[in-house]
Parts: sequence; C-alpha cells; structure tokens
Amino acid sequence: MKAIGKKLWVIAEGYIPEYGTGKEPEFLSHETACILNTSDKPAQVSITIFFNDREPAGPFKITVEPRRTLHLRFNDLKEPEQVPLGTDYASVIESDTPIVVQHTRLDSRQAENAIMTTIAYSE
Amino acid sequence: MKAIGKKLWVIAEGYIPEYGTGKEPEFLSHETACILNTSDKPAQVSITIFFNDREPAGPFKITVEPRRTLHLRFNDLKEPEQVPLGTDYASVIESDTPIVVQHTRLDSRQAENAIMTTIAYSE
Amino acid sequence: MKAIGKKLWVIAEGYIPEYGTGKEPEFLSHETACILNTSDKPAQVSITIFFNDREPAGPFKITVEPRRTLHLRFNDLKEPEQVPLGTDYASVIESDTPIVVQHTRLDSRQAENAIMTTIAYSE
Amino acid sequence: MKAIGKKLWVIAEGYIPEYGTGKEPEFLSHETACILNTSDKPAQVSITIFFNDREPAGPFKITVEPRRTLHLRFNDLKEPEQVPLGTDYASVIESDTPIVVQHTRLDSRQAENAIMTTIAYSE
Repeated sequence: MKAIGKKLWVIAEGYIPEYGTGKEPEFLSHETACILNTSDKPAQVSITIFFNDREPAGPFKITVEPRRTLHLRFNDLKEPEQVPLGTDYASVIESDTPIVVQHTRLDSRQAENAIMTTIAYSE
Repeated sequence: MKAIGKKLWVIAEGYIPEYGTGKEPEFLSHETACILNTSDKPAQVSITIFFNDREPAGPFKITVEPRRTLHLRFNDLKEPEQVPLGTDYASVIESDTPIVVQHTRLDSRQAENAIMTTIAYSE
Repeated sequence: MKAIGKKLWVIAEGYIPEYGTGKEPEFLSHETACILNTSDKPAQVSITIFFNDREPAGPFKITVEPRRTLHLRFNDLKEPEQVPLGTDYASVIESDTPIVVQHTRLDSRQAENAIMTTIAYSE
Repeated sequence: MKAIGKKLWVIAEGYIPEYGTGKEPEFLSHETACILNTSDKPAQVSITIFFNDREPAGPFKITVEPRRTLHLRFNDLKEPEQVPLGTDYASVIESDTPIVVQHTRLDSRQAENAIMTTIAYSE
C-alpha cells in the first residue's frame, strides 16, 4: 500500500502514572504512541521527549516495519534513558517515511481503569 | 446534502478487549468506527487491518447508505476473516465517496466501563 | 475578538445512553457539542442529525451569542423533534459565522462515570 | 529544535468539576492545557476564557520556556481572576511562537477517576 500520513508528529500530553492496579501487562498504567506504517519500506522513527524543568531527552530510535503497526509504550523506552514515571512530558516523533500516530493512555491507578485517546498533531 | 469529508481515513489505535462485564450488547467491550455518509449516493467502503507481526488483512467491504451513519463495530467484521481479540491492530478506511470517520472504544473489562474517542486521521 | 474556526463541522459518533446514575443534572448521561463563537456577531447554527435506518432529522436551530460558548446537550434539542435515546446517530453542524466545535460524552450508566472528547471534524 | 505548531489554538470544552475524591494533587479534578514549545525562544502565551453568560475573562499571561512543556491546569490561573468551578467555559490560546496544545481533563468526582483528551483546534 502507498505511504499514508506525515513525517512529523507531536503529543503534547504525556504522563505515565506511577502505579496501577489489576493484572499486568494489560492493566499496567501506560502511555502509548500507536504508529502505523502503511508503506513498503521500514520507517526509521526518532522520538524526542520534552520536560518541564530540564533539557529534552533522546533521540529514542525505533523501527516500524513495512505494513505494520507498532503500539509503542513509552514505559518501554530504555535508551538513551528511561522515561520517568509521575512526570509531565511531551514528545516529538519524526520519521523518514510518512506514518500516522495516535496517542492513548490507560490509567489503572484506581480500581477501575480509565482510557483516553487522540490522533496526534501533525505537520 | 452535499458530500462532506475525505476518502481516506486512518485509525492507528486498535484493540478489542478479550472480555467484558455488564449486559450485552451495550456493555460488550468494543472498538467502533463511526462513519457518516452525508451524500446522496452509497459509499463503498474498504477497510484494511494492519498488525504488529503479520501481513495486513482485508479488504473488508461495507456499504454506508446515502444520508446514513454506520457505527461499525470491528467485532462484527467476519469476511475475509475475524479481527482477533486482545491483539494490537490499526486500520485504513477507504471510500469511493467522501465520508467522516470517528473512532470510539468502550472497555468494559472491569466493573465500570471506560470510553475514549477521536476523529480519525484523514488526507 | 476576530472570528476563529470553520462554518462546517461533523461529529460522526453520537449516542445518548438511555439512563444514568448519580445526581442530576451533572451526572445525567449526556452527549455535548461545545460551540465557541469568538466573533462579534451572533452565530446562527443549524444542526442536522443522521441515523442508521431513517432519513435525517432537522434542521435544529440555535444561536450562539457573540463572544460566548454554548455547551449544547443533544438531550436538550426538542424542535423539530427529540433526539432518541439509545440510538446511534451523527451530526452535521453548520454556522453562518466561523465557530469551533468539540464533542464530549459523559456516560453515567454504571456507578462511576466515564468521559470522552474530541475536536470535531471541520472543513 | 525548530519551532513546531501554530500560534492560535482553541479548546471549546472547558469545565472544572467542583470537587473530587482521592489523594491530591494527582486526583484533584482538573482541566489541563498541555503546551509544548520546541523552539529556542520563550513562548509568550495569552489565554482568553469565554463563558456562556458574561464577557470573556483575561488575558491570562504565561511563558513556556524554550524546549519545555508546560501542563497548565486552568485551576492554577489566578490573574486577572480565578476560573470558576462548575461552570462551562472555552479558551483561546495565542502565542508569539508556534506551540502545540493538547487538552486533558481528569474528573475525580466519583470514586474512580475518568480521563479524556484531544489535540486542540488550531489555525
């Protein structure tokens, strides 16, 4: 399929709750960037994380294979550092190939989980 | 009414919870693509589902009648195959007529249901 | 302030739960179109409601005063007819002046309420 | 990093619940504008709040430092006045530098919190 989307995406809201309740990994509190690469070549994706009180972290490098979707949990980013819990952040997602990015959070800090989603900002 | 919308839409987040609680069908966990066809001719819609670890599935073919909305549950797609539960996916929705697509999930795995929505990405 | 926004908006997802729990009116299940008119003249707004199995209803006529926001509950639309509960619908919102429209639902059918929101589709 | 985003943003939905449950400040009911300034100069941001039945309030002035994100709780705006609780409002966010704005609400009025988010409207 042809490439669909944009090469630059922004999620201004970011916050990984410090704890959760319920069976893991489904009910582990998490913040996700759902990335779709419809094209026939790998998308080389570079993520920069912005904070309130320090310089940005990254780039975090990931690859989304051709004709695949990757639901990336920010919790799983380890290199060059781990995204801290309980901290406000924002992210800029750059790709060498057009992709589509949707942001989702599952918050399981209380007995019943809560969810939210939005298509990220692109340009 | 005139045709409103675009012919190409993307939902990068997709996940049908494997179970739910509460009275069905209202509280069955589900993932929905709400499609509106304001035009005076049927919209022939073709959906392709992308996964994390295999080639895309589809096309799934549906028709949205003139001046009608269809709130399509991904759970209800059967041909050419069923969308698996508990699996990350993403979808590309193509139409021969302009339509508008909004994505919604109701997650009823825990005692209290959770909901989320976003207008899909279009181009 | 100058006029901001667009004159044509679409909410493809619509569903007013048939019942709710909790103190009313805050916890009455409701579906809302939040409309902002930043301009210095009244916005004459016309809403058409689309269904799955019948011709569209409307137009429903409302006015949003200059420099005001109106958080319109679909439950409150009475003329030319009432929006039915427990029924899938979608809405097209047209204005003679640029406005901004955001869609929100509060679902209080179960003990704990659930909320969702998205900026509507515009063109 | 280069400046990303737009200089004019709108959140048409605004409502700070009058009370909450759970440990504060995490579970205090709040309405947030998450703002990202990727540029290398401070973003001077001016917020105007619109109501249903009175003239707009503001401008509320804030600064988002270079390469920083600010998750602004409307609850924290004090000058020129406090945003009233339990009241419908909408906001226009203007910046002298491109920024990205995402809207989030955490509603903790009932035992289990509920969350919602959307990228704001920009032009």
